[in-house]
Amino acid sequence: MASKKSLVRRTLYAGKKLRLVGELFRLPSGKKHLHETIHHPGSCAVVPLLSRNRIVLIHQKRPSIRKWLWEIPAGTLERGENPRRCAARELVEETGYRAKQLKKIAAFYTSPGFCTEIVHLYVARNLSSVTQKLEEDEAIQPRIFPIQKALQMVKKGAIRDAKTIVGLCFIYNSL
Amino acid sequence: MASKKSLVRRTLYAGKKLRLVGELFRLPSGKKHLHETIHHPGSCAVVPLLSRNRIVLIHQKRPSIRKWLWEIPAGTLERGENPRRCAARELVEETGYRAKQLKKIAAFYTSPGFCTEIVHLYVARNLSSVTQKLEEDEAIQPRIFPIQKALQMVKKGAIRDAKTIVGLCFIYNSL
Repeated sequence: MASKKSLVRRTLYAGKKLRLVGELFRLPSGKKHLHETIHHPGSCAVVPLLSRNRIVLIHQKRPSIRKWLWEIPAGTLERGENPRRCAARELVEETGYRAKQLKKIAAFYTSPGFCTEIVHLYVARNLSSVTQKLEEDEAIQPRIFPIQKALQMVKKGAIRDAKTIVGLCFIYNSL
Repeated sequence: MASKKSLVRRTLYAGKKLRLVGELFRLPSGKKHLHETIHHPGSCAVVPLLSRNRIVLIHQKRPSIRKWLWEIPAGTLERGENPRRCAARELVEETGYRAKQLKKIAAFYTSPGFCTEIVHLYVARNLSSVTQKLEEDEAIQPRIFPIQKALQMVKKGAIRDAKTIVGLCFIYNSL
Protein backbone atom coordinates (compact mmCIF):
# COMPACT_ATOMS: atom_id res chain seq x y z
CA MET A 1 0.00 0.00 0.00
CA ALA A 2 1.34 3.38 -1.00
CA SER A 3 2.11 5.81 1.79
CA LYS A 4 2.80 9.33 0.72
CA LYS A 5 3.52 12.62 2.43
CA SER A 6 2.02 15.99 1.58
CA LEU A 7 4.80 18.53 1.06
CA VAL A 8 2.96 21.68 -0.04
CA ARG A 9 -0.55 22.73 -1.08
CA ARG A 10 -1.20 25.87 -3.08
CA THR A 11 -4.02 27.56 -5.02
CA LEU A 12 -2.94 27.51 -8.65
CA TYR A 13 -5.91 29.48 -9.97
CA ALA A 14 -8.83 31.15 -8.18
CA GLY A 15 -11.78 31.47 -10.55
CA LYS A 16 -15.23 32.96 -10.03
CA LYS A 17 -16.77 29.77 -8.68
CA LEU A 18 -13.99 27.18 -8.99
CA ARG A 19 -10.54 27.07 -7.44
CA LEU A 20 -7.76 24.86 -8.77
CA VAL A 21 -5.47 23.65 -5.98
CA GLY A 22 -2.21 21.76 -6.44
CA GLU A 23 -0.79 19.48 -3.74
CA LEU A 24 2.70 18.09 -3.98
CA PHE A 25 3.31 14.69 -2.41
CA ARG A 26 6.50 12.73 -1.79
CA LEU A 27 5.98 9.08 -2.75
CA PRO A 28 7.63 6.18 -0.89
CA SER A 29 10.25 5.94 -3.67
CA GLY A 30 11.21 9.57 -3.01
CA LYS A 31 9.65 10.79 -6.28
CA LYS A 32 7.40 13.84 -6.14
CA HIS A 33 3.81 13.67 -7.36
CA LEU A 34 1.51 16.66 -8.09
CA HIS A 35 -2.20 16.11 -7.43
CA GLU A 36 -4.68 18.68 -8.80
CA THR A 37 -8.04 19.35 -7.11
CA ILE A 38 -10.96 21.51 -8.17
CA HIS A 39 -12.48 23.10 -5.09
CA HIS A 40 -16.22 23.51 -5.57
CA PRO A 41 -18.77 25.03 -3.11
CA GLY A 42 -21.13 22.03 -3.35
CA SER A 43 -24.52 21.61 -5.00
CA CYS A 44 -28.12 20.67 -4.41
CA ALA A 45 -30.37 18.65 -6.69
CA VAL A 46 -34.09 17.86 -6.46
CA VAL A 47 -36.24 15.04 -7.81
CA PRO A 48 -39.63 16.79 -8.28
CA LEU A 49 -42.37 14.18 -7.87
CA LEU A 50 -45.88 14.97 -9.09
CA SER A 51 -48.84 12.77 -8.23
CA ARG A 52 -49.30 9.44 -9.98
CA ASN A 53 -45.59 8.70 -10.43
CA ARG A 54 -44.81 11.62 -12.68
CA ILE A 55 -41.63 13.66 -12.51
CA VAL A 56 -40.52 17.09 -13.74
CA LEU A 57 -37.30 17.15 -15.76
CA ILE A 58 -35.67 20.17 -17.36
CA HIS A 59 -34.10 20.37 -20.78
CA GLN A 60 -31.08 22.55 -20.31
CA LYS A 61 -28.36 24.01 -22.51
CA ARG A 62 -24.93 23.31 -20.97
CA PRO A 63 -22.29 25.69 -22.35
CA SER A 64 -19.43 23.62 -20.85
CA ILE A 65 -20.19 20.63 -23.08
CA ARG A 66 -22.16 22.54 -25.78
CA LYS A 67 -25.11 20.18 -25.45
CA TRP A 68 -28.73 20.16 -24.29
CA LEU A 69 -29.28 17.64 -21.47
CA TRP A 70 -32.33 16.29 -19.64
CA GLU A 71 -31.71 16.79 -15.92
CA ILE A 72 -33.37 17.18 -12.57
CA PRO A 73 -33.27 20.78 -11.25
CA ALA A 74 -30.05 21.61 -9.40
CA GLY A 75 -27.76 24.44 -8.52
CA THR A 76 -24.51 25.48 -6.90
CA LEU A 77 -24.60 26.46 -3.23
CA GLU A 78 -24.04 30.14 -2.68
CA ARG A 79 -21.57 31.12 0.01
CA GLY A 80 -22.90 29.86 3.36
CA GLU A 81 -26.19 28.74 1.80
CA ASN A 82 -28.11 25.90 3.41
CA PRO A 83 -28.49 23.01 0.90
CA ARG A 84 -32.23 22.64 1.61
CA ARG A 85 -32.81 26.35 0.98
CA CYS A 86 -30.80 26.04 -2.25
CA ALA A 87 -32.93 23.05 -3.31
CA ALA A 88 -36.20 24.91 -2.63
CA ARG A 89 -34.94 27.95 -4.58
CA GLU A 90 -33.65 26.01 -7.59
CA LEU A 91 -36.87 23.97 -7.82
CA VAL A 92 -38.96 27.16 -8.13
CA GLU A 93 -36.51 28.95 -10.42
CA GLU A 94 -35.94 26.11 -12.84
CA THR A 95 -39.27 24.25 -12.94
CA GLY A 96 -41.90 26.72 -11.80
CA TYR A 97 -43.05 24.40 -8.99
CA ARG A 98 -42.95 24.99 -5.24
CA ALA A 99 -42.76 22.01 -2.86
CA LYS A 100 -44.61 21.67 0.44
CA GLN A 101 -42.37 18.70 1.30
CA LEU A 102 -38.65 18.50 0.66
CA LYS A 103 -36.85 15.42 1.98
CA LYS A 104 -33.12 14.75 1.83
CA ILE A 105 -32.41 11.32 0.37
CA ALA A 106 -28.66 11.24 -0.28
CA ALA A 107 -25.39 13.11 -0.60
CA PHE A 108 -22.71 12.01 -3.06
CA TYR A 109 -19.48 13.12 -4.72
CA THR A 110 -19.66 13.73 -8.48
CA SER A 111 -15.99 13.04 -9.22
CA PRO A 112 -13.97 12.53 -6.04
CA GLY A 113 -10.74 11.77 -7.90
CA PHE A 114 -10.18 15.46 -8.63
CA CYS A 115 -13.14 17.52 -7.41
CA THR A 116 -14.58 18.34 -3.97
CA GLU A 117 -18.16 18.80 -5.27
CA ILE A 118 -20.77 17.08 -3.12
CA VAL A 119 -24.41 16.98 -4.26
CA HIS A 120 -27.13 17.14 -1.62
CA LEU A 121 -30.07 15.25 -3.14
CA TYR A 122 -33.70 15.89 -2.20
CA VAL A 123 -37.07 14.58 -3.26
CA ALA A 124 -39.83 17.20 -3.56
CA ARG A 125 -43.49 16.28 -3.04
CA ASN A 126 -46.81 18.18 -2.82
CA LEU A 127 -45.89 20.49 -5.67
CA SER A 128 -47.88 23.56 -6.65
CA SER A 129 -47.40 25.56 -9.82
CA VAL A 130 -45.79 29.01 -9.48
CA THR A 131 -43.78 31.09 -11.94
CA GLN A 132 -40.46 29.86 -13.32
CA LYS A 133 -37.73 32.43 -12.59
CA LEU A 134 -34.64 31.79 -14.67
CA GLU A 135 -31.33 33.55 -14.33
CA GLU A 136 -30.56 35.62 -17.42
CA ASP A 137 -27.81 33.20 -18.50
CA GLU A 138 -29.97 30.06 -18.22
CA ALA A 139 -31.76 28.28 -21.07
CA ILE A 140 -34.13 25.80 -19.45
CA GLN A 141 -37.41 24.09 -20.47
CA PRO A 142 -39.30 22.01 -17.87
CA ARG A 143 -41.40 19.01 -18.91
CA ILE A 144 -43.39 16.31 -17.11
CA PHE A 145 -42.53 12.64 -17.67
CA PRO A 146 -43.87 9.39 -16.24
CA ILE A 147 -41.09 7.90 -14.10
CA GLN A 148 -41.08 4.72 -16.21
CA LYS A 149 -40.43 6.85 -19.30
CA ALA A 150 -37.55 8.64 -17.56
CA LEU A 151 -36.02 5.26 -16.59
CA GLN A 152 -36.25 4.15 -20.22
CA MET A 153 -34.45 7.37 -21.19
CA VAL A 154 -31.64 6.42 -18.78
CA LYS A 155 -31.38 2.93 -20.31
CA LYS A 156 -31.35 4.31 -23.86
CA GLY A 157 -28.77 7.00 -23.07
CA ALA A 158 -31.20 9.91 -23.57
CA ILE A 159 -30.51 10.93 -19.94
CA ARG A 160 -26.74 11.21 -19.47
CA ASP A 161 -26.36 13.32 -16.34
CA ALA A 162 -25.01 11.48 -13.28
CA LYS A 163 -27.05 13.27 -10.58
CA THR A 164 -30.25 12.72 -12.58
CA ILE A 165 -29.54 8.99 -12.97
CA VAL A 166 -28.74 8.75 -9.23
CA GLY A 167 -31.93 10.66 -8.34
CA LEU A 168 -34.13 8.46 -10.52
CA CYS A 169 -32.56 5.28 -9.08
CA PHE A 170 -33.22 6.38 -5.51
CA ILE A 171 -36.83 7.22 -6.30
CA TYR A 172 -37.47 4.10 -8.36
CA ASN A 173 -36.03 1.73 -5.77
CA SER A 174 -38.04 3.31 -2.95
CA LEU A 175 -41.42 3.48 -4.74
CA MET B 1 -35.66 31.79 -23.04
CA ALA B 2 -32.24 33.37 -22.64
CA SER B 3 -30.20 33.77 -25.81
CA LYS B 4 -26.58 34.65 -25.27
CA LYS B 5 -23.58 35.19 -27.48
CA SER B 6 -20.09 33.85 -26.91
CA LEU B 7 -17.58 36.70 -27.07
CA VAL B 8 -14.28 35.08 -26.19
CA ARG B 9 -12.99 31.76 -24.84
CA ARG B 10 -9.60 31.39 -23.21
CA THR B 11 -7.57 28.90 -21.19
CA LEU B 12 -7.18 30.45 -17.75
CA TYR B 13 -4.97 27.71 -16.33
CA ALA B 14 -3.48 24.61 -17.93
CA GLY B 15 -2.73 22.00 -15.27
CA LYS B 16 -1.23 18.54 -15.52
CA LYS B 17 -4.53 16.78 -16.22
CA LEU B 18 -7.14 19.54 -15.92
CA ARG B 19 -7.55 22.75 -17.89
CA LEU B 20 -9.64 25.66 -16.63
CA VAL B 21 -11.28 27.54 -19.53
CA GLY B 22 -13.20 30.81 -19.24
CA GLU B 23 -15.84 31.81 -21.78
CA LEU B 24 -17.29 35.30 -21.81
CA PHE B 25 -20.90 35.63 -22.97
CA ARG B 26 -23.00 38.70 -23.75
CA LEU B 27 -26.47 38.27 -22.25
CA PRO B 28 -29.64 39.63 -23.90
CA SER B 29 -29.58 42.59 -21.47
CA GLY B 30 -26.11 43.51 -22.72
CA LYS B 31 -24.44 42.40 -19.48
CA LYS B 32 -21.37 40.20 -19.72
CA HIS B 33 -21.26 36.79 -18.03
CA LEU B 34 -18.14 34.65 -17.42
CA HIS B 35 -18.65 30.88 -17.52
CA GLU B 36 -15.86 28.63 -16.19
CA THR B 37 -15.32 25.10 -17.48
CA ILE B 38 -12.94 22.36 -16.37
CA HIS B 39 -11.74 20.47 -19.42
CA HIS B 40 -11.15 16.83 -18.52
CA PRO B 41 -9.88 14.00 -20.79
CA GLY B 42 -12.76 11.65 -19.84
CA SER B 43 -12.85 8.51 -17.72
CA CYS B 44 -13.76 4.86 -17.71
CA ALA B 45 -15.40 2.89 -14.89
CA VAL B 46 -16.08 -0.82 -14.52
CA VAL B 47 -18.63 -2.83 -12.54
CA PRO B 48 -16.73 -6.09 -11.85
CA LEU B 49 -19.29 -8.89 -11.55
CA LEU B 50 -18.25 -12.18 -9.99
CA SER B 51 -20.45 -15.27 -10.17
CA ARG B 52 -23.49 -15.54 -7.92
CA ASN B 53 -24.27 -11.80 -7.84
CA ARG B 54 -21.12 -10.69 -6.15
CA ILE B 55 -19.22 -7.54 -7.02
CA VAL B 56 -15.69 -6.23 -6.42
CA LEU B 57 -15.47 -2.77 -4.87
CA ILE B 58 -12.33 -0.89 -3.93
CA HIS B 59 -11.72 1.13 -0.80
CA GLN B 60 -9.70 4.08 -1.96
CA LYS B 61 -8.06 7.10 -0.35
CA ARG B 62 -9.06 10.26 -2.22
CA PRO B 63 -6.62 13.09 -1.51
CA SER B 64 -8.95 15.70 -3.08
CA ILE B 65 -11.58 15.20 -0.39
CA ARG B 66 -9.28 13.65 2.25
CA LYS B 67 -11.56 10.64 2.64
CA TRP B 68 -11.63 6.91 1.96
CA LEU B 69 -14.48 5.96 -0.38
CA TRP B 70 -15.96 2.67 -1.61
CA GLU B 71 -15.96 2.79 -5.40
CA ILE B 72 -15.97 0.69 -8.53
CA PRO B 73 -12.58 0.67 -10.32
CA ALA B 74 -12.12 3.62 -12.67
CA GLY B 75 -9.49 5.81 -14.23
CA THR B 76 -8.78 8.82 -16.37
CA LEU B 77 -8.28 8.24 -20.11
CA GLU B 78 -4.71 8.77 -21.21
CA ARG B 79 -4.17 10.86 -24.31
CA GLY B 80 -5.81 9.10 -27.26
CA GLU B 81 -6.62 6.03 -25.15
CA ASN B 82 -9.60 3.89 -26.08
CA PRO B 83 -12.12 3.80 -23.17
CA ARG B 84 -12.46 -0.01 -23.34
CA ARG B 85 -8.69 -0.45 -23.15
CA CYS B 86 -8.63 1.96 -20.19
CA ALA B 87 -11.40 -0.04 -18.47
CA ALA B 88 -9.54 -3.35 -18.94
CA ARG B 89 -6.32 -1.79 -17.63
CA GLU B 90 -7.88 -0.14 -14.56
CA LEU B 91 -9.76 -3.32 -13.64
CA VAL B 92 -6.50 -5.31 -13.49
CA GLU B 93 -4.50 -2.56 -11.80
CA GLU B 94 -7.03 -1.69 -9.11
CA THR B 95 -8.75 -5.01 -8.34
CA GLY B 96 -6.36 -7.74 -9.46
CA TYR B 97 -9.00 -9.30 -11.74
CA ARG B 98 -8.89 -9.69 -15.52
CA ALA B 99 -12.17 -9.86 -17.47
CA LYS B 100 -12.89 -12.14 -20.42
CA GLN B 101 -16.01 -10.09 -21.18
CA LEU B 102 -16.24 -6.30 -21.01
CA LYS B 103 -19.51 -4.75 -22.14
CA LYS B 104 -20.28 -1.02 -22.39
CA ILE B 105 -23.51 -0.17 -20.61
CA ALA B 106 -23.62 3.62 -20.43
CA ALA B 107 -21.83 6.94 -20.79
CA PHE B 108 -22.66 9.91 -18.58
CA TYR B 109 -21.45 13.35 -17.52
CA THR B 110 -20.36 13.68 -13.89
CA SER B 111 -21.04 17.41 -13.54
CA PRO B 112 -22.03 18.98 -16.87
CA GLY B 113 -22.64 22.43 -15.36
CA PHE B 114 -18.91 23.13 -15.22
CA CYS B 115 -16.94 20.06 -16.31
CA THR B 116 -16.54 18.18 -19.59
CA GLU B 117 -15.79 14.82 -17.92
CA ILE B 118 -17.70 11.91 -19.46
CA VAL B 119 -17.54 8.46 -17.84
CA HIS B 120 -17.64 5.40 -20.10
CA LEU B 121 -19.23 2.68 -17.97
CA TYR B 122 -18.60 -1.05 -18.49
CA VAL B 123 -19.66 -4.26 -16.85
CA ALA B 124 -16.94 -6.92 -16.54
CA ARG B 125 -17.80 -10.63 -16.45
CA ASN B 126 -15.85 -13.93 -16.48
CA LEU B 127 -13.22 -12.60 -14.12
CA SER B 128 -9.99 -14.40 -13.28
CA SER B 129 -7.60 -13.48 -10.52
CA VAL B 130 -4.28 -11.89 -11.52
CA THR B 131 -1.96 -9.54 -9.65
CA GLN B 132 -3.12 -6.07 -8.55
CA LYS B 133 -0.73 -3.44 -9.98
CA LEU B 134 -1.18 -0.11 -8.25
CA GLU B 135 0.44 3.15 -9.25
CA GLU B 136 2.85 4.34 -6.59
CA ASP B 137 0.52 7.20 -5.57
CA GLU B 138 -2.57 4.98 -5.14
CA ALA B 139 -3.90 3.56 -1.86
CA ILE B 140 -6.51 0.96 -2.83
CA GLN B 141 -7.98 -2.15 -1.17
CA PRO B 142 -10.32 -4.42 -3.19
CA ARG B 143 -13.08 -6.41 -1.48
CA ILE B 144 -15.92 -8.64 -2.63
CA PHE B 145 -19.53 -7.76 -1.71
CA PRO B 146 -22.89 -9.33 -2.49
CA ILE B 147 -24.74 -6.87 -4.77
CA GLN B 148 -27.60 -6.62 -2.26
CA LYS B 149 -25.11 -5.53 0.40
CA ALA B 150 -23.65 -2.90 -1.94
CA LEU B 151 -27.15 -1.54 -2.63
CA GLN B 152 -27.78 -1.30 1.12
CA MET B 153 -24.52 0.65 1.41
CA VAL B 154 -25.85 3.10 -1.21
CA LYS B 155 -29.13 3.54 0.73
CA LYS B 156 -27.29 4.05 4.02
CA GLY B 157 -24.81 6.53 2.54
CA ALA B 158 -21.79 4.23 2.95
CA ILE B 159 -21.28 4.44 -0.83
CA ARG B 160 -21.17 8.10 -1.82
CA ASP B 161 -19.51 8.09 -5.23
CA ALA B 162 -21.78 9.00 -8.17
CA LYS B 163 -20.30 6.64 -10.80
CA THR B 164 -20.48 3.73 -8.33
CA ILE B 165 -24.15 4.43 -7.55
CA VAL B 166 -24.91 4.72 -11.29
CA GLY B 167 -23.05 1.47 -12.01
CA LEU B 168 -24.86 -0.44 -9.27
CA CYS B 169 -28.25 0.88 -10.47
CA PHE B 170 -27.60 -0.23 -14.03
CA ILE B 171 -26.56 -3.71 -12.90
CA TYR B 172 -29.35 -4.12 -10.36
CA ASN B 173 -32.09 -3.06 -12.76
CA SER B 174 -30.85 -5.41 -15.48
CA LEU B 175 -30.32 -8.53 -13.31
